[in-house]
Amino acid sequence: MDFEVRVAKSKENADRILKLGKEVEKTIFEGENPSIVLPVRGKRNVVWDKDAGLLSLGDSTSKRYFINVAHAKKFMQTMLVGAFSKQLLDEDIHASLREAFYSLKHTIKGSEENTFDEQKESDDVFVDLEVALAVLRDQLHINADRRGVAAGDVVIKDRGDLINWSKLGSGGWAIPGNVEELEFKDLNADFILVVEKNATFDRLHEDKFWKKHNCVLIGTQGQAARGIRRLIHRLNHEFKLPVYVFTDSDPYGWYIYSVIKMGSMNLAHASEELGTPDAKFLGLTVSDIYKYELRGAAIRAKDVDLRRAQEMLKYPWFKHKEWEAELNLMLKHKIKAEQEALAQRNLKFVSDTYLPEKIEAKNFLP
Amino acid sequence: MDFEVRVAKSKENADRILKLGKEVEKTIFEGENPSIVLPVRGKRNVVWDKDAGLLSLGDSTSKRYFINVAHAKKFMQTMLVGAFSKQLLDEDIHASLREAFYSLKHTIKGSEENTFDEQKESDDVFVDLEVALAVLRDQLHINADRRGVAAGDVVIKDRGDLINWSKLGSGGWAIPGNVEELEFKDLNADFILVVEKNATFDRLHEDKFWKKHNCVLIGTQGQAARGIRRLIHRLNHEFKLPVYVFTDSDPYGWYIYSVIKMGSMNLAHASEELGTPDAKFLGLTVSDIYKYELRGAAIRAKDVDLRRAQEMLKYPWFKHKEWEAELNLMLKHKIKAEQEALAQRNLKFVSDTYLPEKIEAKNFLP
Repeated sequence: MDFEVRVAKSKENADRILKLGKEVEKTIFEGENPSIVLPVRGKRNVVWDKDAGLLSLGDSTSKRYFINVAHAKKFMQTMLVGAFSKQLLDEDIHASLREAFYSLKHTIKGSEENTFDEQKESDDVFVDLEVALAVLRDQLHINADRRGVAAGDVVIKDRGDLINWSKLGSGGWAIPGNVEELEFKDLNADFILVVEKNATFDRLHEDKFWKKHNCVLIGTQGQAARGIRRLIHRLNHEFKLPVYVFTDSDPYGWYIYSVIKMGSMNLAHASEELGTPDAKFLGLTVSDIYKYELRGAAIRAKDVDLRRAQEMLKYPWFKHKEWEAELNLMLKHKIKAEQEALAQRNLKFVSDTYLPEKIEAKNFLP
Repeated sequence: MDFEVRVAKSKENADRILKLGKEVEKTIFEGENPSIVLPVRGKRNVVWDKDAGLLSLGDSTSKRYFINVAHAKKFMQTMLVGAFSKQLLDEDIHASLREAFYSLKHTIKGSEENTFDEQKESDDVFVDLEVALAVLRDQLHINADRRGVAAGDVVIKDRGDLINWSKLGSGGWAIPGNVEELEFKDLNADFILVVEKNATFDRLHEDKFWKKHNCVLIGTQGQAARGIRRLIHRLNHEFKLPVYVFTDSDPYGWYIYSVIKMGSMNLAHASEELGTPDAKFLGLTVSDIYKYELRGAAIRAKDVDLRRAQEMLKYPWFKHKEWEAELNLMLKHKIKAEQEALAQRNLKFVSDTYLPEKIEAKNFLP
């Protein structure tokens, strides 16, 4: 993002915080009890928005009062967190949730009371703030933990640097925790391929898969971190690129896919900005284990896998005949497999045969 | 590494494997029982080499025979692993340990016996092979899992790309699992700063610490992966650059430091290539918590921390009066602190005050 645009954006968000503060101040001067209205978070207010294809927050709201023994501390914390974010925006710097916690934690003068005792308290209030302001906390300069790697024919601009993802050797570009300010300057790709395992990223990267098949390759290193999910969302929305997700053939891998696609319970308030409902599941499926003769590399499913598969059958977002068939196949044969199982055919089987066949045939799960 | 150099290097290593195979073949044709001599691994043959400042393998060796019920399977596995590595070198491709396991695992014709049942078996044999050949398994094209990020005024060449670590935005260069083939083309730095936490890397990177203080910044994201350790080793050895390690003030952080510096029990056979005995510990120390007024951000040490500190007091490599003082201080006050605790002073305190002061005063632990 250009400097001027970034400054304007920061100012806009700082002003939203200021407005919230001014309203509270005004109420106090009017002799009223200040309050903030917040959507209720947590499982009981998470709904499956079938039309949007996202897990979202429902309509329940709650009011937090300043003069209320049960709310007073939380109210004070909300003001502190707001002031902290505003300062970050004013100074044009960023902080992690952990740094924010330590910055904000202190003993209140003349008391033995701490502003915050546990990081969970400040984390929760940052979520409150992003919900109350309808702004991603990333845009309030709070960084998530970083994870993930990207490669492909893409040029981005980030902190003044022009970075070409196709020229970064075996390493690739380390995806930061906050991708709000990066701009896509040039992109030449037909789709985004998201892979769960580092080893799979390395295999496809060494085999020049992204070059041969004209795609952007993103490695999540397990569960996709917030920065990765936001990056996938942006690539999908800004370029209308299809997104294919490739994970292990087990409930954990399928969960990774579902979080990328429709968001998570925890971050349901941000699904619209983090989720990618267009995403399709490429594999591994349980049928792939049979179709691609990977039985010798399959693993016996554990009880926890079977329990998770049973649960997934009940989720409305997995209510598709294709997913039901796969989940039932797993429950019947009690097997699972890793992405690397494809190496049993041969090392390049995944790059030369499996992925091209699946993509060509559009053999995806919804 | 230039293509020709890489090919020559691969050929040299492939020839070492071939030689091992030829010797076995010759013994068979002579009607003898083939064998391989291997250093004994595991705790009982790990020694503390005080002069080198490294954990190393001792002198114990064992002989593995082909015709011996207890050794036969392991012998067969060793031959399979050797053949696999040779193929990687011949084809100029790389593989992870997991891919290698799946590639090698199959049921032996006419039997119900598998070549390998668990990945641990093939992992162990790869270590045997690197020890027997005195070649790092990375040089046999076996990649470790990747982790870590780098930034600084460094230009490297990797897979034909020239990569400038100072021009990679907020992300940085993702350190791959295997750094054998990358070449340093240009470097302008006075020291290497290695940091444990992503949030600390992000803080220092945003604050342009590496630019202001002319250093290379490496984030390990927890325990330093093999590729990171090898990268630090190479930077230290090829450029004679001092290495300062900055972790949390707790036994886990100090363990991260000790592994970077003198290697680990598990990989004692490779300490000479992975360790950096020159490395110094910058902080956090327990005294720092007092000196820099971080008491409000300190955490009560858990029993496991105290037990680990007790153990560390017994390790010969921590037998320095400075370390003994720190460990005893921890045991006395039963506290620890995270790197992010420095944010309690203010967000940039770590970049503006703490690190410059410590480095200027050369206030390090051995």
